[in-house]
Amino acid sequence: MSNQGWCLLRRPTGYFQEGDIVLSDLPMPQPAPGQLRIRTVYLSIDPAYRVWANDIILYFPKLEIGETLRGSIIGVVEESYHPDFTPGDIVTGVLRIQKYLLSDGTDIMKVPPDLSLRSYFALYGHIGTTAYFGLEIVHPKAGETLVVSSAAGGVGSLAGQMAKIYGCRVVGIAGADDRCRWIVDELGFDAAINYRTQDVDQRLRETCPDGIDVYFDNVGGAILDSVCLQLNIGARIALCGMLTNYNSDQPVAVYNLLELILKRASAHGFLVTDYLPRYLEAFTQIKAWEAANKIKYRLTVLDGIEQLPQALEGIFASRYLGKVVLQIAPEP
Amino acid sequence: MSNQGWCLLRRPTGYFQEGDIVLSDLPMPQPAPGQLRIRTVYLSIDPAYRVWANDIILYFPKLEIGETLRGSIIGVVEESYHPDFTPGDIVTGVLRIQKYLLSDGTDIMKVPPDLSLRSYFALYGHIGTTAYFGLEIVHPKAGETLVVSSAAGGVGSLAGQMAKIYGCRVVGIAGADDRCRWIVDELGFDAAINYRTQDVDQRLRETCPDGIDVYFDNVGGAILDSVCLQLNIGARIALCGMLTNYNSDQPVAVYNLLELILKRASAHGFLVTDYLPRYLEAFTQIKAWEAANKIKYRLTVLDGIEQLPQALEGIFASRYLGKVVLQIAPEP
Repeated sequence: MSNQGWCLLRRPTGYFQEGDIVLSDLPMPQPAPGQLRIRTVYLSIDPAYRVWANDIILYFPKLEIGETLRGSIIGVVEESYHPDFTPGDIVTGVLRIQKYLLSDGTDIMKVPPDLSLRSYFALYGHIGTTAYFGLEIVHPKAGETLVVSSAAGGVGSLAGQMAKIYGCRVVGIAGADDRCRWIVDELGFDAAINYRTQDVDQRLRETCPDGIDVYFDNVGGAILDSVCLQLNIGARIALCGMLTNYNSDQPVAVYNLLELILKRASAHGFLVTDYLPRYLEAFTQIKAWEAANKIKYRLTVLDGIEQLPQALEGIFASRYLGKVVLQIAPEP
Repeated sequence: MSNQGWCLLRRPTGYFQEGDIVLSDLPMPQPAPGQLRIRTVYLSIDPAYRVWANDIILYFPKLEIGETLRGSIIGVVEESYHPDFTPGDIVTGVLRIQKYLLSDGTDIMKVPPDLSLRSYFALYGHIGTTAYFGLEIVHPKAGETLVVSSAAGGVGSLAGQMAKIYGCRVVGIAGADDRCRWIVDELGFDAAINYRTQDVDQRLRETCPDGIDVYFDNVGGAILDSVCLQLNIGARIALCGMLTNYNSDQPVAVYNLLELILKRASAHGFLVTDYLPRYLEAFTQIKAWEAANKIKYRLTVLDGIEQLPQALEGIFASRYLGKVVLQIAPEP
């Protein structure tokens, strides 16, 4: 039994490349009084990990060279000197991408016992809650047209399905034909746009003949600009992520903000961690939707902590449908 | 008695230049049943007139080559075959920049009789209401820091003073030292930044040591980017105008929208015309503030319709403090 984790060797430029991160041997964490040790079981693979490696302060302290990367994990408590946790508890949080972790209990929450560990990051966790609370901010109404980018990804595929439940016409923007087929044929989106092969402006006009009332934005940049041109009066934009920025040293330009004035539209940035006290509410609703077969998901599980570089490269290359997780240890 | 108006000869590139617009003789409007004739008294000089001359659809039908420019005017009814208006009524609306105008009554409202005509566009009209309702959208609270751009202009100087009334720390961004002195020394702003001669990023850090909670944005572009870097969590941005875009064929880039996510901030476009049914509410409040000496204004009145090019050039060159109007006929 030995510990390992992915450490930052140098700041990436563009996508993560070989030599940016390295799988290093780490000391086995020994919990002191008030602490506990976690064995990592699953790691959520998220585009945000790339921007977290930049030389900027985000919502976390800046990641320094040599530090272990942060990641959203599920794990099992192995050893505990903390009054609220006992060995065998299943916990989750944004910790580090390593096999064994130390916690003082403030950075983790227990996973509700009725939820499947394997599908936790596909339907629940920060993914389902991001879709759920992001939509709450822009309150899509029945009959409205909602566009979602990164629509075949973990968050986007859920946000689009939830908007269908709310009665919206839903158009998804994705980066490959199989992704476009999946969200229309299996998830029930009304239309899909392949931004890599199609003219996004023209396709938005075709697929949103009544204009766009709500945009769930995971990418920023040129697609945000295209959506701005089709906004209806009173439109709302949920700023969930800016994927186009994550692999770049320079932020990507947006040009069409004047449209927000002309259309009396609003854009709302949010971080799902602000909704932590309401996660269980979202979990309950999502579980009910899934039980009623109103929400589907696709999950790719890659095996072994050493697969992290391939997993990250794969999500940026639009290689996987839906959610990707890395299994680091067997489920308890 | 003859009619004249400023007509669009060709689309401007950059600022209005000689030859873009021409003062032309026009037929004297003859009202038919249901119509009335207005003699224009004052014209508000607004930066938006420039963007209204572009080859784009805004909130008005596109201005075609040869058409008379649109403008916000106050005038007196001369002749009326409309049941709601009688000669001598003072009316206002976004009509055309010409000496005599025809109206069917749907595009005008009566100016409340207790308001001064001369100061109407400095304190009331679309200027005071833009400041008033724009602030309402972003609800500045006592103790918060508010930044306003184009702060020595008609809207900006009022928005800043209203924010002071609401108890905010107020920092204004303007384009000349005399403008910066005016907003601090006479209007009571807490600090001013000259964006033409100072480092805006550095000055924002100095003048907003507790960060920025509210931004009343009249300019967009690079100043919006600088403000984004200093936003506090939960900050609100009122998107009132994008001056940096108005004299350009190409929209100006904005790069720092990722900050809206990191700071859970929101940006709200608005057009004051949506608030027309509530104008009187704003007028009453502004009148009370002015009577209590809590709101001051500076007004430049240029004389004669032929001064329009100089007036427009002057506002873009930051030549006038506060509001600029053109007097086209004597007050009745």
